[in-house]
Amino acid sequence: MTDFAATKAMFNLPDGLVYLDGNSLGALPKAATARVSEMMTKEWGERLITSWNLSGWMAQPMTLGDRIGGLIGAEPGHVAVGDTLSIKVYQALAAALDLRPDRRVILSDSGNFPTDLYMAEGLLKTLGKGHELRVVAPEDVADNLTEDVAVLMLTEVDYRTGRLHDMADLTTKAHAVGALTLWDLAHTAGALPVDVAGCNADFAVGCTYKYLNGGPGAPAFVYVAPRHADAVAPALSGWQGHTAPFAFDLDYRPASGVERMRVGTPPVIQMAALETAMDIWDMADMTDVRARSIELTDLFISEIEATCPMLTLASPRDGLHRGSQVSFRFEHGYAAMQAIIAEGVVGDFRAPDLLRFGFTPLYTDEGDVRTAVTRIARVMNDKLWDRPEYKIQKAVT
Amino acid sequence: MTDFAATKAMFNLPDGLVYLDGNSLGALPKAATARVSEMMTKEWGERLITSWNLSGWMAQPMTLGDRIGGLIGAEPGHVAVGDTLSIKVYQALAAALDLRPDRRVILSDSGNFPTDLYMAEGLLKTLGKGHELRVVAPEDVADNLTEDVAVLMLTEVDYRTGRLHDMADLTTKAHAVGALTLWDLAHTAGALPVDVAGCNADFAVGCTYKYLNGGPGAPAFVYVAPRHADAVAPALSGWQGHTAPFAFDLDYRPASGVERMRVGTPPVIQMAALETAMDIWDMADMTDVRARSIELTDLFISEIEATCPMLTLASPRDGLHRGSQVSFRFEHGYAAMQAIIAEGVVGDFRAPDLLRFGFTPLYTDEGDVRTAVTRIARVMNDKLWDRPEYKIQKAVT
Repeated sequence: MTDFAATKAMFNLPDGLVYLDGNSLGALPKAATARVSEMMTKEWGERLITSWNLSGWMAQPMTLGDRIGGLIGAEPGHVAVGDTLSIKVYQALAAALDLRPDRRVILSDSGNFPTDLYMAEGLLKTLGKGHELRVVAPEDVADNLTEDVAVLMLTEVDYRTGRLHDMADLTTKAHAVGALTLWDLAHTAGALPVDVAGCNADFAVGCTYKYLNGGPGAPAFVYVAPRHADAVAPALSGWQGHTAPFAFDLDYRPASGVERMRVGTPPVIQMAALETAMDIWDMADMTDVRARSIELTDLFISEIEATCPMLTLASPRDGLHRGSQVSFRFEHGYAAMQAIIAEGVVGDFRAPDLLRFGFTPLYTDEGDVRTAVTRIARVMNDKLWDRPEYKIQKAVT
Repeated sequence: MTDFAATKAMFNLPDGLVYLDGNSLGALPKAATARVSEMMTKEWGERLITSWNLSGWMAQPMTLGDRIGGLIGAEPGHVAVGDTLSIKVYQALAAALDLRPDRRVILSDSGNFPTDLYMAEGLLKTLGKGHELRVVAPEDVADNLTEDVAVLMLTEVDYRTGRLHDMADLTTKAHAVGALTLWDLAHTAGALPVDVAGCNADFAVGCTYKYLNGGPGAPAFVYVAPRHADAVAPALSGWQGHTAPFAFDLDYRPASGVERMRVGTPPVIQMAALETAMDIWDMADMTDVRARSIELTDLFISEIEATCPMLTLASPRDGLHRGSQVSFRFEHGYAAMQAIIAEGVVGDFRAPDLLRFGFTPLYTDEGDVRTAVTRIARVMNDKLWDRPEYKIQKAVT
């Protein structure tokens, strides 16, 4: 049984603040600053270049990959850490298309995170073979799985509403028409259990700065199913994915397995911070996290609905169909979120009208939920959002 | 006049060690650990998600880009920081090829860093349009600039020997046949003055963990000449390069200028370390750095040749044709470098027989050079390398 009081104690959380934005940027593990300082002082400062071997920097993308792999049901040795999620989407999609050379459709949905669609757009333009990026409504995905689909590319949890796709079911349906699957787990990894191997997923990608708490700009990860891992020809064929990076051959020969999805020099300082986040994940069981997440989000929904009739639930009501976030619609959403933040509850706003709140059982408990509801209710019922300073829209994240 | 004693005092250098490998991984700025700790504690830990605006995280790839731009002669606003050098090579080469749709040859040389060639290979395979990657000997580059060349892609300083290409001359010659240029400044930025604008370079890329001292895994940079910056269609079209990243449009619309070369979420923790390195660069003048670098490398060559007749100079003897490194050939190079490191001089080995030493005036002085020569001479003349433990080859960097 996961001890959530113990995991919460591992994080640095500002006094008095209820932080419900861990789905955008996870909180700081208390151990992270000291670990990064030690890494910088000792591994970089003293051991310098020898740290690539002596401090294990070279191996870290794979060892961290395995730790993340444990949270998403990946086979050991089949997850590599590095780059950004956008880059990993490009890489995985290119690899998947290469395995389906006779097909020309990438099927995705309008609930996908935009950068996934942008990266696909860029890749298809680069390929120049007349591929079509077919973007349908989330509920129409299954019906659009036709025999011309090369790759089904979806984000499992909708970043706006938290709506959850059925990964196992859609993967089976995709395979039935001969398509491959590319799952973006940005809002899944660390939010709910997922079983990429058990679902027979072909490719999966994700980031580590949201629910995994790896820190701002923490690297992404990529999973390639063992049956494909030695077959894919990387489009982004960098030296760290070479079978012998320090031979400095003029020709590229891919490393075996997912290691060929490594590209350039890994972000060593970011990885040190990510390590301390993964240490906290060692204390947690994803089944417990999921149960607690549903409890917290159910409570939040019922309490908000009881106190804020002007807010309309935008997330699935059934916890089993929802990720670890809750969104409400409100006409003056931008101003409302500014006011809510000013009252000490950090969520975020997504255009045109969504108030979005993320729930992270590792450091969010029932007391936090109740405090958040009280503050949000005050903002809504006292119309605290109706002040000029909250209406000036800035770039937000 | 640059005060090199003052810049040296800004670095953390292990006692007794002479570090001549700053061309692989630069030394730790003393201020870096505290700056990163502060960034983590205050910006990540306390301000959390609001730091994207409040702490300037969002703007940092461009503000850091300008600081680097100042060292390579770029126009303000035309350098963006992010990703790895491999990714930036791919991106810049894709953009350059897109500007020369009727040509099919990428000209490079065998002195280019292998990952540049690997990334080109991967891109050409992805493009699938029958492009040819023509790799010639460094001295044959000019003669191979024919009318079918789309892009001349070179690393200015050879990573093994330090041989320097004439960037202005080759760029002019490339333009004369209608080709564009892509310069890799990995061993240039922070090592010698370069003037990308003055040379009319089209694209340039580089890394920040070598002479710039940004730390292990520090991000790369990309320069796009103003005349191309709004014309290129990014192959890696990520949301951070979108004109309105937080509008979350389903369609990609590139940001204006080089900002469209941004891809995913930038590595904020790495950027904090890089900032402190750039603070030291504010104390330095690249002309002084170059003069000092030639003094130090000239001294090293003459002293090594006077004391170690078994070593053969592999670098250009004329400092004006050499980057900020010196390499010597020796049959038992691997073992010799292990022995030299054991004696307290860190250089590195490059197959098949190169002993490579980098010189970084910001923290390497004449005393260091003399100490290094004494130690190297002892290893060579007493055959300290001829011990079994130095012959077991490990993966090295």
